[in-house]
Amino acid sequence: MHIVITGGAGFLGQRLARELLKAAALSISGEPPSPIESITLVDRVTPLTDLSNDARVRVITGDLNQLLASTTPADQQVVLPSSSVIFHLAAAVSGECEADFDLGMRSNVDATRALLESCRAMGTKPVFVFASSLAVFGNSAEQPLPDVIDDRTLPTPQSSYGIQKFIGEQLVADYARKGFIRGRNVRLMTVSVRPGKPNGAASSFLSGMIREPLAGVKASCPVPPDTAVALSSPGKTIEGLIRAVQASDPEWGPRTAVNLPALTTTVREMAQSLEKFGGPAAARLIDWAPDPAVSRIVTSWPSKIDAARARGLGLKPDTSFDDIVAAYHTECTASRTA
Amino acid sequence: MHIVITGGAGFLGQRLARELLKAAALSISGEPPSPIESITLVDRVTPLTDLSNDARVRVITGDLNQLLASTTPADQQVVLPSSSVIFHLAAAVSGECEADFDLGMRSNVDATRALLESCRAMGTKPVFVFASSLAVFGNSAEQPLPDVIDDRTLPTPQSSYGIQKFIGEQLVADYARKGFIRGRNVRLMTVSVRPGKPNGAASSFLSGMIREPLAGVKASCPVPPDTAVALSSPGKTIEGLIRAVQASDPEWGPRTAVNLPALTTTVREMAQSLEKFGGPAAARLIDWAPDPAVSRIVTSWPSKIDAARARGLGLKPDTSFDDIVAAYHTECTASRTA
Repeated sequence: MHIVITGGAGFLGQRLARELLKAAALSISGEPPSPIESITLVDRVTPLTDLSNDARVRVITGDLNQLLASTTPADQQVVLPSSSVIFHLAAAVSGECEADFDLGMRSNVDATRALLESCRAMGTKPVFVFASSLAVFGNSAEQPLPDVIDDRTLPTPQSSYGIQKFIGEQLVADYARKGFIRGRNVRLMTVSVRPGKPNGAASSFLSGMIREPLAGVKASCPVPPDTAVALSSPGKTIEGLIRAVQASDPEWGPRTAVNLPALTTTVREMAQSLEKFGGPAAARLIDWAPDPAVSRIVTSWPSKIDAARARGLGLKPDTSFDDIVAAYHTECTASRTA
Repeated sequence: MHIVITGGAGFLGQRLARELLKAAALSISGEPPSPIESITLVDRVTPLTDLSNDARVRVITGDLNQLLASTTPADQQVVLPSSSVIFHLAAAVSGECEADFDLGMRSNVDATRALLESCRAMGTKPVFVFASSLAVFGNSAEQPLPDVIDDRTLPTPQSSYGIQKFIGEQLVADYARKGFIRGRNVRLMTVSVRPGKPNGAASSFLSGMIREPLAGVKASCPVPPDTAVALSSPGKTIEGLIRAVQASDPEWGPRTAVNLPALTTTVREMAQSLEKFGGPAAARLIDWAPDPAVSRIVTSWPSKIDAARARGLGLKPDTSFDDIVAAYHTECTASRTA
């Protein structure tokens, strides 16, 4: 089987690729596992060498819209080499989309549609996993969110990123209904702790406020300490993406999106977990510096998720933020000693 | 004030134009009424001469995508001549979109986005009334609709038309949030009785089964007699579109769509109303000929609407289908004698 991961050089994309390469086989839509022959990583940047040196990995570097635009169906096979599974993770992130409306429309709407068109042109009905986001939900004074979000809550996005992801869900749903793909709309929670560098996501600080202080570096927290957030560890997030492929159509259920499970916590509790692992010195490296632009987006997102459909698929949230920080710490130590 | 109506040569577009010309003035967003200086009707076909001969009416004939594509901002002023209000009624209809996926995407998604971009380029934040549809709601075995739909019910479209209209709502919502337009997402119910000819809408027969027999012509009804439907007369529908412009932003409320009020009835009761006005001979002209393709779409739509936001704006549903048929009959007679 051939697999494509867009955004394949991103943190989640690379981690997903490693998990799949390690497993060496994947069950699609309830069928027995098949061997993974190749994984194509499409991204604007290149992945790390542990991946690019793997004989099963193909790397395609470029802008997804440009790669897919004005190509013949034969050329599109270069991007989608008879793939059975496409993980569409590539996206412009929330902060970027709010600052640059056109970038968001191109990266999140146009690229998703172009990729779906390429799948349709293949004619082989691949499994298409669309990484949507918690950001489709937005609280506002004129339309408050319910206290707990479930799989049937009406999304009322309060950011361009949220709107664009929700439009992506609609496209995936209709391409699935038409039989062009097997659609899997998956709403990711805020992933924490992400390794690496800060990015343009409004939620970036929710990893940075742990990652940077543990490395002895200052980090800012732009929201009040009692801000409640819905988080998922990288491991649980990858588990959800893979489960979406494994589930049969009836197990998966409706074409609307599945909310992944989330751990509800507050940034104050996150800071307390940091202190447990890094000591008071690490906790003091958090600079509680309010940023209205970031705060407006992040506090509009819900914090309590009743992820009934995900639960039905056997997916569970992380048990505690302490455990998430512990796992992050162990992985960091392992990668430093490797 | 200048007004643009896309789909302006369609039945609703022409009726809307006549109402506005008769009123001669319009209140925008809670402000005192201003005189209507011009109405631009954009459509692929030309409107009737009572409109095209009116000195206040400008007619632009062509495909909306082509008119708006690859033009300079100055050229776009030709389509949107410093307009304060845009009624975006142009669309490919449900049956067409189901038969021709690409046509639907072009006509309903691309054209809506191009028009919104033109509004953004104007920089004057016009009121943008988007005619969405009841068809965003779709019942299915794996995701049954609630018995009664309200303004916060999650749309789960079961047709490409429904998906495309729902994507249009999201675009309008975000263009409004960004301050490019004043957005007014309005979900129209099935309009009955439409005069004129049948069209490619799956709901076309809901007018035809009254209109044709009253004119002594056979008409088919492709769904079972106990099929429940949510209808609105042409008059009530136009009233809803105009009210959307008049309402101030706070009166209008959230950027999500407002469901217009609907009369819930069944096609059996509709046939009974026909018999009251046209006699048994007219009722016998209905050919009860099931059509699975049409039936699948129409029976997936909800029939009971709790239109709370519309009610808050003073909008009410039609009182009975008998009254709708009576009004249609009166209008037909008036136009024949005019």
